[in-house]
Amino acid sequence: MVTTVRLAVIPGDGIGPEVVGEALKSLEAATAGSGVVFEQTHFSLGAARYLETGDTLTDDDLAAITGHDAILLGAVGGVPGDPRLAGANIERGLLLKLRFELDHYVNLRPSVLYPGVASPLADPGDVDFVVVREGTEGPYVGNGGAIRVGTPAEVANEVSVNTAYGIERVVRYAFAAASARPKKKLTLVHKTNVLVFAGSLWKRLVDAVAAEYPEVAVDYLHVDAATIFLVTDPARFDVIVTDNLFGDILTDLAGAISGGIGLAASGNINPDGTFPSMFEPVHGSAPDIAGKGIADPTAAILSVALLLDHLGHAAAADRVRDAVAADIAERGDARRSTSEIGDAIAARIGA
Amino acid sequence: MVTTVRLAVIPGDGIGPEVVGEALKSLEAATAGSGVVFEQTHFSLGAARYLETGDTLTDDDLAAITGHDAILLGAVGGVPGDPRLAGANIERGLLLKLRFELDHYVNLRPSVLYPGVASPLADPGDVDFVVVREGTEGPYVGNGGAIRVGTPAEVANEVSVNTAYGIERVVRYAFAAASARPKKKLTLVHKTNVLVFAGSLWKRLVDAVAAEYPEVAVDYLHVDAATIFLVTDPARFDVIVTDNLFGDILTDLAGAISGGIGLAASGNINPDGTFPSMFEPVHGSAPDIAGKGIADPTAAILSVALLLDHLGHAAAADRVRDAVAADIAERGDARRSTSEIGDAIAARIGA
Ligand SMILES: CC(C)[C@H](C(=O)O)[C@@H](O)C(=O)O
Ligand SMILES: CC(C)[C@H](C(=O)O)[C@@H](O)C(=O)O
Repeated sequence: MVTTVRLAVIPGDGIGPEVVGEALKSLEAATAGSGVVFEQTHFSLGAARYLETGDTLTDDDLAAITGHDAILLGAVGGVPGDPRLAGANIERGLLLKLRFELDHYVNLRPSVLYPGVASPLADPGDVDFVVVREGTEGPYVGNGGAIRVGTPAEVANEVSVNTAYGIERVVRYAFAAASARPKKKLTLVHKTNVLVFAGSLWKRLVDAVAAEYPEVAVDYLHVDAATIFLVTDPARFDVIVTDNLFGDILTDLAGAISGGIGLAASGNINPDGTFPSMFEPVHGSAPDIAGKGIADPTAAILSVALLLDHLGHAAAADRVRDAVAADIAERGDARRSTSEIGDAIAARIGA
Repeated sequence: MVTTVRLAVIPGDGIGPEVVGEALKSLEAATAGSGVVFEQTHFSLGAARYLETGDTLTDDDLAAITGHDAILLGAVGGVPGDPRLAGANIERGLLLKLRFELDHYVNLRPSVLYPGVASPLADPGDVDFVVVREGTEGPYVGNGGAIRVGTPAEVANEVSVNTAYGIERVVRYAFAAASARPKKKLTLVHKTNVLVFAGSLWKRLVDAVAAEYPEVAVDYLHVDAATIFLVTDPARFDVIVTDNLFGDILTDLAGAISGGIGLAASGNINPDGTFPSMFEPVHGSAPDIAGKGIADPTAAILSVALLLDHLGHAAAADRVRDAVAADIAERGDARRSTSEIGDAIAARIGA
């Protein structure tokens, strides 16, 4: 029996296509002979497409992507300061639009310090946690505005919108994740002493769901304090659940302490399956090193593992992660090209 | 000639009174014989006062404090989870209320890694930067609200308010600070690709003021990327200017990488002199170690240096900092009590 998975591939800009190419090799290797076949549609989206056509994400693009089972994205974004992109906001118009339209309410970002990886921390300890970042609310909703623009009397507001509906579902996902992990610990990160309305809602919903998961230990940290613990005692974390903006900040820091965002994978997940979920490395398009074949494809390959997890192929996902761990352990200081790393990992998966 | 400075002292809760006591010793030592005399009024404010009287900060308190030339604050806040404080928000009602009412639009937080201080970073490099955090706007304004509270249809909004008036003045302060420092570099930190209205306003005002400071090199980082650089290359920073919430987050992280918030000082400054400025260690009241005489008073003492800077006594401020640096350099692993550290630093200042 053959299962066909319709995979939308968005290579994007800069190093995006390079790392996606390697990620697809690992996807093939991990599912070869398993009866799962990936039918790929490549979408040309990002800064390059915008410069060519003026389009960021058309309704047709969105409809076509929605017809797929999952999405693999490389990275989008042009050269910083490119005057032709001054009027565009590729991040909002493409990346965030996909997350919102496809109701990716779980932004899943694991942080694992693999043996052999250098951390900027002198004594990182056992780093193995996952941030469950809310993906469809908070300060990311785009409900801002400004008056008297360009005058000394300008006022610019940004509204963070938080709903019980939106928070409860991501909190439930986070508790289920914590319950399935050995440490069974969940940390809510917010700023309840300042953002009292949103903070109170998050706190009450975490407390309510906690009652259903007596086996999960729950604690709370203000976001400022959380950054301290991420550099002084990251091993204290297991599952962090937090809002969209705090999650954005914490996951870059988490990536940095666990070896750099060259290794950080992420899933933009719609757990209900109403829409396709999207998997992408946390890093950007890095135009400065694009085309040189020196980008590290590991984060994109680890994003494939999250994709396989999501599709229910846990064993294949583990094979990808094991191959990455083995490759990293033997990396040493040798500089390898993007495809050398990609080939080595794919070969290990196939072995 | 004798100048009298009316100093409002708010020792606060937990370790607050302990560290303030030591800080006052250094203040005396640094100004002895200088003709500057500090006339102190102590205000009993914080969780303890709230529990006794139900008041956080009365109009009379505020009027009395406003009549002073400067404020030294220890730390406020009760034991986390104390049910009697459940309805109180001492942080909002006292600390933030003072910052807002006294128009402390510059929240100044230097980060210096003193020789001899251990950083959690393996290779921190030369850490010496200052965060100029906006103190009266952004998501801290308290303009939030909620509807259908307690129901599954609850919506909780938080509004970040940003004005050209409020941003320009803090940006000007930051450029003046950068221009007076050897590196002459200013980094704006924001999240312009998501918070497009507030971000655009910050960006335009930084660009406008930059034109008046051609000697200052200006760059921009998204807040998430800034956390990465704070752990991978903190030496790249000189002056960071940022909004209230991003500044809150970045300064805790900055404190952690430069030896812990036990060393982090801060000034809540009203540069116009319309209202008294307030100086406080970044750390909290630490009820778990209160009363044991083991709290490190260094952050409070360094806050006194900022107070002296603000009052125009730069030489006295430098004597405090030099004494702290010398004390830290010889600290080693010996555990000293709060007053042993305070006495040692005060003695060095006097020597
Ligand atoms: C590019 C940007 C809009 C995005 C975000 O803020 O979510 C990125 O930083 C991320 O974390 O995926
Ligand atoms: C106590 C709290 C309200 C405060 C803040 O968020 O500003 C604190 O974290 C700080 O940084 O001084």
